[in-house]
Formats: sequence, structure tokens, C-alpha cells
Amino acid sequence: MEIIVKPIGTIHSPFKTKDDISTQRNADPRGFDSIRGTLEILPAHTEGLKDIDGFSHLILLFSFHKSREEKHLVRPPYETEERGVFSSRSPHRPNFIGMTVVRLHKTKENILEVSGIDMLDGTPILDIKPYITQDLKTDISLGWMDKD
Amino acid sequence: MEIIVKPIGTIHSPFKTKDDISTQRNADPRGFDSIRGTLEILPAHTEGLKDIDGFSHLILLFSFHKSREEKHLVRPPYETEERGVFSSRSPHRPNFIGMTVVRLHKTKENILEVSGIDMLDGTPILDIKPYITQDLKTDISLGWMDKD
Repeated sequence: MEIIVKPIGTIHSPFKTKDDISTQRNADPRGFDSIRGTLEILPAHTEGLKDIDGFSHLILLFSFHKSREEKHLVRPPYETEERGVFSSRSPHRPNFIGMTVVRLHKTKENILEVSGIDMLDGTPILDIKPYITQDLKTDISLGWMDKD
Repeated sequence: MEIIVKPIGTIHSPFKTKDDISTQRNADPRGFDSIRGTLEILPAHTEGLKDIDGFSHLILLFSFHKSREEKHLVRPPYETEERGVFSSRSPHRPNFIGMTVVRLHKTKENILEVSGIDMLDGTPILDIKPYITQDLKTDISLGWMDKD
């Protein structure tokens, strides 16, 4: 069973290559909060943006378009042990789909100004969803990522 | 540009058809918290589940496999006005990809017992990611969904 998906737009980011993203920034849960970028939605999909400006945060689904290798075990930065890919946010995952929550600042026609950008310039957007109460979980355990 | 994705497993849910999900439950932000289900991961991907049992919450990406119609404007339950699909969680969206955060209760080999299930039985899973600090946003505005 194969499912075909198509980009609905493109992310414009200050990160032109993966070397522009430091592992230090990656390790900091707030490391990308100040990073601004724009989402350029294809004109064919602009109508779907109606009412989006009332939401403070958006869930972006995107394609890790530079990833080629699918791995089941990955070694995250600063880690000595290999972790299962489904317990990581590694781009080297089956289906190469990424998910990031961004803050929405401004909407003008098919252009959305956002912050919290942690993906590369030119990343294809697969979906935009409003971040809602159901997505907010406070009593969370972080497994191997919990360093405290 | 087309991207091909493949299921990594299947969701077993008490909801056999969409009529099993009341609009009342849908409208309640905690309406699905108690709904239990299992994620059955394909044996080929089981290795990727290593270390997942340390996380309390998982992000599920899945295919709205019963959706056929892609709409840019949708009329959510109890709403009189049409809303842009990207400001809604409607299944009638470009690429038909859904996202739900579930609570992980137990992992045994390729079977994950979870709660917070709001999708239909037989739903194809596209990805599982750990829910991490970056996904937790507290100062949120809910646009047209804010009824308070």
C-alpha cells in the first residue's frame, strides 16, 4: 500500500545547509524559538488558510527532503548509545516526515511569518494544522532524553 | 513533485466507523483521553521502537484512510461558518495526514498499548515520534475554536 503526498508550499529558513544548525542549538529545547522564517503556500491552497490568523501556534508537517537514508537505530548528537528512531526526532526515519510546532506572527495572503523554524530552507510543507488544547500535554516523561 | 509514503503499522481502535464517534466527544478537548487502543507496528520496523517505553506521550502521524474528498473550506460540527481547512483538524485536507498525541501505557515487542485514540480502526500509521518539551506550548490562542 503506497500513499502519494504532494507539497502544499515551501518553508523559507535562514538555515541553508544542515551545517548551519549547531548541535548546541539542537540540544536546547528553546534553541529555535527565536528563529524566524516564512511559509509560502501554493496559490492553489491559499483558500485553506482562512481563519488561521487567530491561532498563536501551528503544527507543521514537512518532508525531510535532504534525507535519503532510512535507519531504525540512530545516534543522536552527544549520545553514545544508539536509540530507536521512533524514540527520536531524527530525519532518518521511515517516510521522512517531520513535525514542528511554530509560532504564527503574521499572515498576508499566502505568506505566513513564523518563528520556531528548525528546518532547512526549501523544505516542502505537507500540512498545516492549528495547535489546540488536545496537543498540550503537561505531565510528560522524556525517556532517554531526560538528563535531569 | 510527488512523495510516496508507506504505512509502518496499523491502529486498532474501538471506533469501527465514523458514526461511532459522537460530535459531542469530538467537541470535548478531553473527549478521547480514556479511549484505549493498540498500535501494531510491522515486524520490519520493530527495531525502531527501541527506548520508546521511557516516553509518556507519543505523536502519531497517520493516514485519514477513509477520506476521499480534499476541501479548502470545511464546516466543523456545531459551526455555522465555513473555516479554512488549515485552521481545522478536519480529515478532508490535502494529503489526508492526521496527527494525534497519545499516552503510552505499555510496550510489548511490536505492540504498543495507548490511550487518547481518536481515529478509526484500521488506520494506517505513518510515523511515531516522542512528544518532547519543544511540543509543549502553554500560551496558546485558539482562534475561532475559542468559545470562552
